[in-house]
Amino acid sequence: MSVAIAADPTACRDTSGLLPVLGRDVTVPLVTGGEVTYAALDYAASAPALQRVWDDVAAYAPYYGSVHRGAGYLSQLSTELFENARRTVAGFLGCRAEDQVVFTRSTTDSLNLLARALPAGCQVFVFETEHHASLLPWRDARVTCLDAPRTPRQAVETLERALADRDCGGPALVCVTGASNVTGELWPVRQLAAAAHAHGARIVLDAAQLAPHHPVDVTDLDVDWVAFSGHKLYAPFGCGVLAGRADWLRAAEPYLAGGGASRSVTRSSEGTVDVEWHENAARHEAGSPNVIGAHSIASACKALTETGWDTLVAREQHLIRTVSEGLAQIPEVRILSLFGDDAPRVGVISFVVAGWSSAHLAAALSAEYGIGVRDGLFCAHPLVRTLLGGDPQTPGGCGAPAAASGGKSLNAIRVSFGAGTPDEHVVRFVDAVRELVREGTRWQYRTQDGRCVPAV
Amino acid sequence: MSVAIAADPTACRDTSGLLPVLGRDVTVPLVTGGEVTYAALDYAASAPALQRVWDDVAAYAPYYGSVHRGAGYLSQLSTELFENARRTVAGFLGCRAEDQVVFTRSTTDSLNLLARALPAGCQVFVFETEHHASLLPWRDARVTCLDAPRTPRQAVETLERALADRDCGGPALVCVTGASNVTGELWPVRQLAAAAHAHGARIVLDAAQLAPHHPVDVTDLDVDWVAFSGHKLYAPFGCGVLAGRADWLRAAEPYLAGGGASRSVTRSSEGTVDVEWHENAARHEAGSPNVIGAHSIASACKALTETGWDTLVAREQHLIRTVSEGLAQIPEVRILSLFGDDAPRVGVISFVVAGWSSAHLAAALSAEYGIGVRDGLFCAHPLVRTLLGGDPQTPGGCGAPAAASGGKSLNAIRVSFGAGTPDEHVVRFVDAVRELVREGTRWQYRTQDGRCVPAV
Repeated sequence: MSVAIAADPTACRDTSGLLPVLGRDVTVPLVTGGEVTYAALDYAASAPALQRVWDDVAAYAPYYGSVHRGAGYLSQLSTELFENARRTVAGFLGCRAEDQVVFTRSTTDSLNLLARALPAGCQVFVFETEHHASLLPWRDARVTCLDAPRTPRQAVETLERALADRDCGGPALVCVTGASNVTGELWPVRQLAAAAHAHGARIVLDAAQLAPHHPVDVTDLDVDWVAFSGHKLYAPFGCGVLAGRADWLRAAEPYLAGGGASRSVTRSSEGTVDVEWHENAARHEAGSPNVIGAHSIASACKALTETGWDTLVAREQHLIRTVSEGLAQIPEVRILSLFGDDAPRVGVISFVVAGWSSAHLAAALSAEYGIGVRDGLFCAHPLVRTLLGGDPQTPGGCGAPAAASGGKSLNAIRVSFGAGTPDEHVVRFVDAVRELVREGTRWQYRTQDGRCVPAV
Repeated sequence: MSVAIAADPTACRDTSGLLPVLGRDVTVPLVTGGEVTYAALDYAASAPALQRVWDDVAAYAPYYGSVHRGAGYLSQLSTELFENARRTVAGFLGCRAEDQVVFTRSTTDSLNLLARALPAGCQVFVFETEHHASLLPWRDARVTCLDAPRTPRQAVETLERALADRDCGGPALVCVTGASNVTGELWPVRQLAAAAHAHGARIVLDAAQLAPHHPVDVTDLDVDWVAFSGHKLYAPFGCGVLAGRADWLRAAEPYLAGGGASRSVTRSSEGTVDVEWHENAARHEAGSPNVIGAHSIASACKALTETGWDTLVAREQHLIRTVSEGLAQIPEVRILSLFGDDAPRVGVISFVVAGWSSAHLAAALSAEYGIGVRDGLFCAHPLVRTLLGGDPQTPGGCGAPAAASGGKSLNAIRVSFGAGTPDEHVVRFVDAVRELVREGTRWQYRTQDGRCVPAV
């Protein structure tokens, strides 16, 4: 295929580690008057598309065609693009030669797929500190939910104890995050993998928050599977990845039943329908593949790799220091942490402010400063409850925490950032929190539909 | 929200019913020399994006943010866009007030979701003529596979007989296509729905091939659910739809377990994890919603509605006549049909050519004429076998059918088109088939990896 469908990869390259993203010039109105450049600080939920990713998608879009299905030039080109994306992702993750890369819709989808591929009788071990996407999918398995550890070492010991106590012989799976979506803290993945394997269990890494910030190498970490989402990796086109060991995937019933997954379908003489399924990744990818989504993820993988992890990590650590040191100077602020203030982390920081409802503060950051953060429980209710030391309730509303919960915060605020975040965004954020805590909001807010919004 | 994120809807409006699509100017090389504008005639697999859809996606992309999750301006805007898309789709489908619109990844995904939401003991009735996405998902149900009918009337009678014979009292579901992905023929959906309801069964309409070509109104047709895909509706961004009755969906276990679907997650005193799930569409949309995909579908729905179905259908019927009358003048061509040559159809036509391997002809159409069609069994193996009157085998390869199968075609060719197809494409297609059948290919072809490709 000779058609040039890739954007010029050098056009947007930046050796500073600050990568151009879509929306970097978007301005939003302030309730106090005027407009300001939007500071997107909710990367842990959804990161903006890299300009490079968008350019690659735009370059390909006119050549869009059916994948694995057509005889035409664009179908062949699209099929090649899709399978190239698979290879790029395999390389990005350091996959073993025999691993499968399955394109899903998100990390949630990836882990639900793996949950449906567990062998009979499989036991699952998961910390209560996980995101719900890692905590909840194991509906057909016997799940052991492990208490929140307070050090990485304790995490490994907790897992080792639980695995030692398990029924011997049967299959087991450990599911663990690489970086917490609440605290940003790195988990001891390599050690947990070693513990799992020492006890005959397998391990899947939830890299939704890790992969955008940190190199992930399944061979080096010795994890059996890894899952991540495009929309957190600067490629928000409805696609995710599950990559790893082929054997369980090949032995399992197809995740979705339909075309693409089925090699041959016949009616038997008794009138029933007999199906022969594919054994490669297509087995779990029924329906027309999301080629734009897969292409966008591959583009992001290339952009991050070409920029270089050393550069990206160094810049992000600089941003983390700006935020954590800035917040540390505000006595009312408490940063949430499982492993302590010095624990290595990615650009995800959650905190509460004494005397403030998190919803109120987040609403003011948006309305008065043009800063987008998230308040709530971050789809990790048990973890946030542990960190807050209370019983968080449904997030939302403007009430001060003291009024509603006897002084305990109902929920937290999360600020998160990455390769597209300029210094100004995090500086503005720290200054805004300081100003709000010292001087209060300049506007009035009210509760509407459970959310805190500016009063008009 | 006052930010202008929609493209100008009048910019690309065309009253002729020919809508501008991405890729309309793409040229591809011919093996015989030179280049030609690509004729995308595989719409039934994946249709090109409408220019309007692309423009809407491009206009929104810089404002991309997390849906249902953030306090920032762009998160609120994205949430509003996503929920507006849901309302637009509900209007496009003529949904009842109490219906739910769930965004999935495709029709395949939608039907697999419904399959997981069936009440206990549900019987499923499905014709053997369905696409595998409609035929195969009902893995937990007792499935009655109905013989291929040869008239619409026979379809209704066959269903009525089967329903009359069923165990009374329990829940039952009929799954039926609106337009065949092989023959393009319209199925008597209204009559089948009436038959289903008369016997206490429900019905889901697979509108993957119908919705891009024909108005679909669930209230008017009185179907309980409808499923379709964005990538066949000029919106190829990894999103699909399941819309219809809320009760079964609300009573079912969530399709995916994870964040977004869970309202509250707590650890019980016994250490287990207790979940309270949402009851609205979010119940089955765990993970970050594909807001670009949903927005693109809504954009396509608006574009089709604003152009007007009368205009669109009239133009497509003109294209259908050009193809079917053109092919009818080539004696070697046999158009595949269940219901006869005069049956109403959408722009999907499959055929075989005496003495030709379909793979060979499709390869030549691509390599020598720049025309993209599909050859194979179209993810509807039992139907194609019935239509071919033989036992089709794995598609691919250049061998003449006579050599491999005693004169029977191994598979078929499908040409399909829609709102972005200029007359020239279908005229070129008919001329090319005539020329190839009369004069043979100008190039040599060989089999490689089971496919037929030009020999170099």
